[in-house]
Amino acid sequence: MAGKVFFSVTMSLDGFMAPEAVPVEDVFSPARRNDPSVRRWTAKWAALQAWLFPQRWIRENLRLGEGGEEGLDNDIVRATYERTGASVMGRRMFDLGEPSWPAEAPFHTPVFVLTHTRRAPWERPGGTTFHFVDDGVESALRQARETAGDRDVRIAGGADTIQQYLDGGLIDEFSITLAPVLLGTGIRLFDHPDPDHLTLDQSRSTASSRVTHLTYSVVKRRPTVPRGEVPVGQVGSSTGSGT
Amino acid sequence: MAGKVFFSVTMSLDGFMAPEAVPVEDVFSPARRNDPSVRRWTAKWAALQAWLFPQRWIRENLRLGEGGEEGLDNDIVRATYERTGASVMGRRMFDLGEPSWPAEAPFHTPVFVLTHTRRAPWERPGGTTFHFVDDGVESALRQARETAGDRDVRIAGGADTIQQYLDGGLIDEFSITLAPVLLGTGIRLFDHPDPDHLTLDQSRSTASSRVTHLTYSVVKRRPTVPRGEVPVGQVGSSTGSGT
Repeated sequence: MAGKVFFSVTMSLDGFMAPEAVPVEDVFSPARRNDPSVRRWTAKWAALQAWLFPQRWIRENLRLGEGGEEGLDNDIVRATYERTGASVMGRRMFDLGEPSWPAEAPFHTPVFVLTHTRRAPWERPGGTTFHFVDDGVESALRQARETAGDRDVRIAGGADTIQQYLDGGLIDEFSITLAPVLLGTGIRLFDHPDPDHLTLDQSRSTASSRVTHLTYSVVKRRPTVPRGEVPVGQVGSSTGSGT
Repeated sequence: MAGKVFFSVTMSLDGFMAPEAVPVEDVFSPARRNDPSVRRWTAKWAALQAWLFPQRWIRENLRLGEGGEEGLDNDIVRATYERTGASVMGRRMFDLGEPSWPAEAPFHTPVFVLTHTRRAPWERPGGTTFHFVDDGVESALRQARETAGDRDVRIAGGADTIQQYLDGGLIDEFSITLAPVLLGTGIRLFDHPDPDHLTLDQSRSTASSRVTHLTYSVVKRRPTVPRGEVPVGQVGSSTGSGT
């Protein structure tokens, strides 16, 4: 049985999954650390993810230190990683992670990075191998599905990557951890989705004292027709069932 | 003991509390009913409120008919009305409601309507009296508080009115019913809030099979200084504690 394709992100109450982007090199530059835009990025990111970093599982996996909280939030974070057989990731997310993750990168599975430049696979201790895919989102997903087996494929992010898979009708379900935070500005998770092609069911909703964990199933998706492969019988159809 | 000032709205997963506005007269005009923009408005509004109108309490209160669902969603709708001692409403919401509500208007308390034109109070059977306030949001809130006694004051909407009270630091808590719906475009509940002056606590989160009901307390608010009344000691302060 093939696994599901999903994403799982934290969203602010006003709909942002990240602060407005700053150049990746600025985030890690000692000289730029006190730049107002970099400070603002870091402060917003920290506010959004404030529920996550105290969790025991994340602290262990990112080598942040001993201890941490156990409970619903921790269980959900661990379950998200355990269901994942492979991940797909945008280039910017990889660029932000590469200097931040511990040597034993926190995925412990294959990760397919969408990029425009060829690069040999990068194998890390602990089971994570980054594969660089330069022939599109569908190719990356196909490769991820093949290696994931009956486990699920996680579209890890960022927002652009998630939106491409969502707009392409390629997402089966998604989870949002809704944080009680207003960011005011930033990168929206849903930036003008097409509501006619995305009908959702709330399949799970559970809350800790900090946040609410929501899961939605996509029940109606845009038909996925790879470019140049219009099926016979649909040519000239102007009605479009949308299913 | 004075009651709280709150609002309670349904929000789509992509952050909208209403479709993009169309002229009020178009919504009720038989000639305009099939206009694409009116049909779109009606369809989106119906999708957003799909959880609400089957509820028994709403059906009774709006005279929609016998029967209806009972359960968590119905209990929450009823509790929201029962806690409310007075409401404040924007002019557009009143204009949409005036031809739609039954003669026995569904508030059964005083309602203060923000307007720029004077009008005598409009008393309806069943306890609702509309008072028209032409001297600002603080005046409307003060009058609502006085009549509500120890019950709460509801800022009924629409989005503009809610944002004015939120930006003014006048909201104690708010409830959002998060619907599993994407509208794509519309009127945002949070349209560029100032995150530095709004710190929230998730105080309640509970879900039915349809929607999730969220309640947040405002724990840090913009200091409310009525225009022309700058307290001695704050003049010349450039730091601003924000509390």
